[in-house]
Amino acid sequence: MTGTAYQRLENRFRRLGALRDAEALLHWDLATMMPAGGAEARGDQLAVLTSLRHGILTAAETEELLETAEEAAKAADGLDPWQAANLREMRHTWAHATALTGEQVEALSRTASACEAAWRDARADDDFAAVLPKLETVLALVRETAAAKAEKLGISPYDALLDEYEPGGRSREIDRVFADLEAFLPGLLAEVSERQASDPPVREPEGPFPVERQRDLAVRLMQVLGFDFHHGRLDVSLHPFCGGTPDDVRITTRYDEADFTSALMGVLHETGHALYERGLPAAWRGQPVGDARGMALHESQSLLIEMQVCRSRGFLGFAAPIMRTMLGGDGPAWDTDNLYRLYTRIRPGFIRVDADEVTYPAHVILRYSLEKAMIAGDLEAADLPAAWNEGMGRLLGLTPPNDRLGCLQDIHWYDGAWGYFPTYTLGAMTAAQLFAAALNADPAIETGIASGDFTGLMTWLADNVHSRGSLLTTRELLVAATGRPLDAEIFKTHLKRRYLA
Amino acid sequence: MTGTAYQRLENRFRRLGALRDAEALLHWDLATMMPAGGAEARGDQLAVLTSLRHGILTAAETEELLETAEEAAKAADGLDPWQAANLREMRHTWAHATALTGEQVEALSRTASACEAAWRDARADDDFAAVLPKLETVLALVRETAAAKAEKLGISPYDALLDEYEPGGRSREIDRVFADLEAFLPGLLAEVSERQASDPPVREPEGPFPVERQRDLAVRLMQVLGFDFHHGRLDVSLHPFCGGTPDDVRITTRYDEADFTSALMGVLHETGHALYERGLPAAWRGQPVGDARGMALHESQSLLIEMQVCRSRGFLGFAAPIMRTMLGGDGPAWDTDNLYRLYTRIRPGFIRVDADEVTYPAHVILRYSLEKAMIAGDLEAADLPAAWNEGMGRLLGLTPPNDRLGCLQDIHWYDGAWGYFPTYTLGAMTAAQLFAAALNADPAIETGIASGDFTGLMTWLADNVHSRGSLLTTRELLVAATGRPLDAEIFKTHLKRRYLA
Repeated sequence: MTGTAYQRLENRFRRLGALRDAEALLHWDLATMMPAGGAEARGDQLAVLTSLRHGILTAAETEELLETAEEAAKAADGLDPWQAANLREMRHTWAHATALTGEQVEALSRTASACEAAWRDARADDDFAAVLPKLETVLALVRETAAAKAEKLGISPYDALLDEYEPGGRSREIDRVFADLEAFLPGLLAEVSERQASDPPVREPEGPFPVERQRDLAVRLMQVLGFDFHHGRLDVSLHPFCGGTPDDVRITTRYDEADFTSALMGVLHETGHALYERGLPAAWRGQPVGDARGMALHESQSLLIEMQVCRSRGFLGFAAPIMRTMLGGDGPAWDTDNLYRLYTRIRPGFIRVDADEVTYPAHVILRYSLEKAMIAGDLEAADLPAAWNEGMGRLLGLTPPNDRLGCLQDIHWYDGAWGYFPTYTLGAMTAAQLFAAALNADPAIETGIASGDFTGLMTWLADNVHSRGSLLTTRELLVAATGRPLDAEIFKTHLKRRYLA
Repeated sequence: MTGTAYQRLENRFRRLGALRDAEALLHWDLATMMPAGGAEARGDQLAVLTSLRHGILTAAETEELLETAEEAAKAADGLDPWQAANLREMRHTWAHATALTGEQVEALSRTASACEAAWRDARADDDFAAVLPKLETVLALVRETAAAKAEKLGISPYDALLDEYEPGGRSREIDRVFADLEAFLPGLLAEVSERQASDPPVREPEGPFPVERQRDLAVRLMQVLGFDFHHGRLDVSLHPFCGGTPDDVRITTRYDEADFTSALMGVLHETGHALYERGLPAAWRGQPVGDARGMALHESQSLLIEMQVCRSRGFLGFAAPIMRTMLGGDGPAWDTDNLYRLYTRIRPGFIRVDADEVTYPAHVILRYSLEKAMIAGDLEAADLPAAWNEGMGRLLGLTPPNDRLGCLQDIHWYDGAWGYFPTYTLGAMTAAQLFAAALNADPAIETGIASGDFTGLMTWLADNVHSRGSLLTTRELLVAATGRPLDAEIFKTHLKRRYLA
């Protein structure tokens, strides 16, 4: 072994990055291509890769190298800013990995897999009681995880979970912006609902829309946005996602021949994720500082494309004739104005993934408050259905008729992903703030979008977000790009402009 | 760590097996799905996985465990036959891996990659001189590899290379059977050529044959053979192959809309490989004893299906009406007799992969004799074109007009795969011998094939070949299944029956 401690860490993390990329491809294949009979073997492959990665990361030598490199970095001719940030991110990754023993990691992984499988049946059968024992076991292990990570990282147990998805994210900040939204949204919703009720009814374009045509349309609009098929693919999976690696980005969707609108907007959403991945700094591939900054910023990139851009009247003015031609549509349902009203229709409902942008935050705030209470020990899993339904009544005025439409709808908790939910709404607010700053910096972006020219927007995003990888913290990046930290006012202004103007 | 040394070795090889399976999926994806821009990152992923696997295999602990387990196995209550064979195969895998240093492995891999890339251009440009320097470097490293492995394994340098693809394979045996074929085939070829020349001309079914229809037909016949789509897929790649893993077998083909015959027979060939993989002993997944026995036996399974079964008049009598219906064909070109003559047409040519079963062995014997001479130092890379053309003249009476149709046609040597070629013809002979034994054991197999019922054949193959994994050596397996070691007479009898009867 030669080179400085820092260089040796780069080599080590390059191997970790390649392993993680291999896992990403195995996951993509599992969701898109794998015949069902391959599931068990695939599970073994993924478990072995994850365990090898954990072993390399938590080896004693990694810690020694981190300490030596950190000491050396204090010298005058130490690291450049990218290297310094890379070392900081390495330490962060290492801290999360070593907070738990291998046995704890494996116990949580095994328990979550079993609970997730039970949840699939419980949701289908609308039988919360059937999955409750397993959920209780998961919760107990997650509390243990949170406590261990809290001690290691010196932050609260909930923040220690959140920190894995949103490095540097803190519930104190989230509480503040979510309280702001929670006070604002019910009034807005009432006003928007009243206004939309008095509008003439929205026309639904009539299908069927053959999958092949929907796919061609999606590809066409992906190309307009700048998706590079030399470095990516579009496929089909049950649950849409963006996977793969920056040089080989794989997005998926699911088509409904009776309704093209959902698959199409889903593809554009995933394209936002994909453009972020593709735009990450090529010089830092495989290194922690070359990774996306966190889930809030990742979600901001998909929501900026979907909510800020593609559901705007400007973009739909450009896209409506393409949709009509490529799907063989005819009549007033295909007018820009109707499609715009269709794509900005507000309807409170039980299901988060079907929610519009005005009611979506309520779904997130509910889950965030419940998971915080469960981690803190203030709420037990057995009391979840009642707490859920109470919250839905308070936040959206709806009472779920059953747990399938209530606390059984999302995979996250059952699968062990606690502390993830707030990133959706942090992403929506960040998207509004970044887009406002982009328009402010280059007013031609708006006219570009309306004519299908994304050069201006993509240049701004590349410069201010994508190419920065994890050089800055989320907060620093946002301040550098928009002049201030996360500010709920900008999101509120966006909603008022779009829905009440 | 708990358990006996043998149990700990099983754990270690289970991880190695999962890593290799992951690599197999990454290779499949590379050939079928990956956008071109993902190539560099995929190369990194594969290199890291291979290096991790090599590291685990060659770790000092592996050798210690092997020694302890071998010592313990001598006790009265030692290992059962499967475990003992597993331990033998572990030692064999280990011996190959440790014969070379990590630096040697990497140097060969890097040099072969560079040479393979240069070969693609050289072949396109018909410019052997352009790739010669790189081929010379590869050959030098391969000679070094052969010498190192020869010393470690106690066999000749050429056999040490062959042994990696065909464990236990020895050139002394191959020399004997190939000499037999070399004496027999020219006379047969002359006789068959004369006979076929006097037959009325074969009719070529007229296309175009849309890819979708060709695929449906291929899937239909794969199902007839017993391919389980719950555990496998059929996709498209430039060079057809069988990849994936036993529980998730992935075969590929390449369609030509002007001519369906090649893709269809290619799919059936790969299905033979796939059925072998799928039929490997499930109880030994991931362990060396659960692997396919070697490349000769693997090729025997594809050639048994393709050459012995699917090009037979009996099978074509069953398949011809299905082909005609599913491809929308009409007229006398679709008669069983014409399709049979089409699929058994003998035409000496320059290209191995296009060769029929009578001339194919000549292509293999040429390459085998040349690579033996090059490894022994009796032939230099610079003299390859002349030696090649001389051999083609002697063996097939043809003089290649250029090196593209000569010594530049195959990837093997340029890519570092020396010692592989003989397995093709060993496979063809083994296929004839196994099929003859199967018919002898269960005469109903022949009528089954003619009516599309493969139960009898597949039961025999499962019992005598597939389910045995690597329990026996190739020779032992052949003796157990057919009553004798490899015997060229049976292959010769097959050719005489098919082409001169």
